[in-house]
Amino acid sequence: MSADSGVQRLHVGARLSEVAIHQKVVYLAGQIADDTSADMAGQTREVLGHIDRLLGEANSDKTLLLSVTIFVRDMRLFGQMNAVWDAWVAPGHTPPRATVEARLAKDDLLVEIMAVAAQRS
Amino acid sequence: MSADSGVQRLHVGARLSEVAIHQKVVYLAGQIADDTSADMAGQTREVLGHIDRLLGEANSDKTLLLSVTIFVRDMRLFGQMNAVWDAWVAPGHTPPRATVEARLAKDDLLVEIMAVAAQRS
Amino acid sequence: MSADSGVQRLHVGARLSEVAIHQKVVYLAGQIADDTSADMAGQTREVLGHIDRLLGEANSDKTLLLSVTIFVRDMRLFGQMNAVWDAWVAPGHTPPRATVEARLAKDDLLVEIMAVAAQRS
Repeated sequence: MSADSGVQRLHVGARLSEVAIHQKVVYLAGQIADDTSADMAGQTREVLGHIDRLLGEANSDKTLLLSVTIFVRDMRLFGQMNAVWDAWVAPGHTPPRATVEARLAKDDLLVEIMAVAAQRS
Repeated sequence: MSADSGVQRLHVGARLSEVAIHQKVVYLAGQIADDTSADMAGQTREVLGHIDRLLGEANSDKTLLLSVTIFVRDMRLFGQMNAVWDAWVAPGHTPPRATVEARLAKDDLLVEIMAVAAQRS
Repeated sequence: MSADSGVQRLHVGARLSEVAIHQKVVYLAGQIADDTSADMAGQTREVLGHIDRLLGEANSDKTLLLSVTIFVRDMRLFGQMNAVWDAWVAPGHTPPRATVEARLAKDDLLVEIMAVAAQRS
């Protein structure tokens, strides 16, 4: 953890931090699956698990999401990603979201998700 | 509408909400055209109309935009999108913007726009 | 510069502004290289220089970055971009980041970077 002028960071690495917190807003790095042998459903499940864990560490949770950007490797897998997403989101607290297709950092990555959330007040 | 811990949501659906508001900042879902038979100019016009309407409901407007991300299906249509955009933005209040090419959720979608704006104070 | 209802803008153009500032948060437009004859390392260096300069004008700097989205034209150049990035970031203050591949507005653009940062308090 690192605290500079009003910015708190979690899981600070040499290239990026997984979390930055500023004025009660939580910014997450793009989350990807560690197990890239998993299919779209499996990778999405792992990514959403990372988001749950990081938001928890930042005193937030999925009911407080403000904006989510989803990059999928192949739009033909959109439905598989959505099935996992739809089961995960908190009814009544679904976030604004955009989903577009993009190649990701490694060829076997199928989904990457960026999120911004409010901290619990 | 739904109000949780400091987050207000508008047009709350099972998958996503069109708007989240937190600490006077308005986050919109990626906006797309309903009429996907329209050309780039037509789709852009419809998308910007959605943004006008949603910002209005959130007590904001296009003079208060903070950040806009535009995904276009084909960069060869960049000029057509820009012509509609340039006529729409409020002179003196244009927002930071990035535009990249990406396949969108449906094959006939030509443009999707995400926006963040300030609420009127 | 232009100040509306709590939003300050810098480098205001007819299409976009390079910077918007609201409630101590700085939003930058997607930054690209002017010298598009440069390779990925050169373009990344120029883009990060633009970001340094704009953050400086907004009373911020790279230690205060909250979220960075990097669009690269060709993921095979990911390593070249990262080498320049890794040398640039402030140790202990690295930001949340996502990197995806996307065609950019001009064919010879290799990288575009969007950033959000906190203002110095």
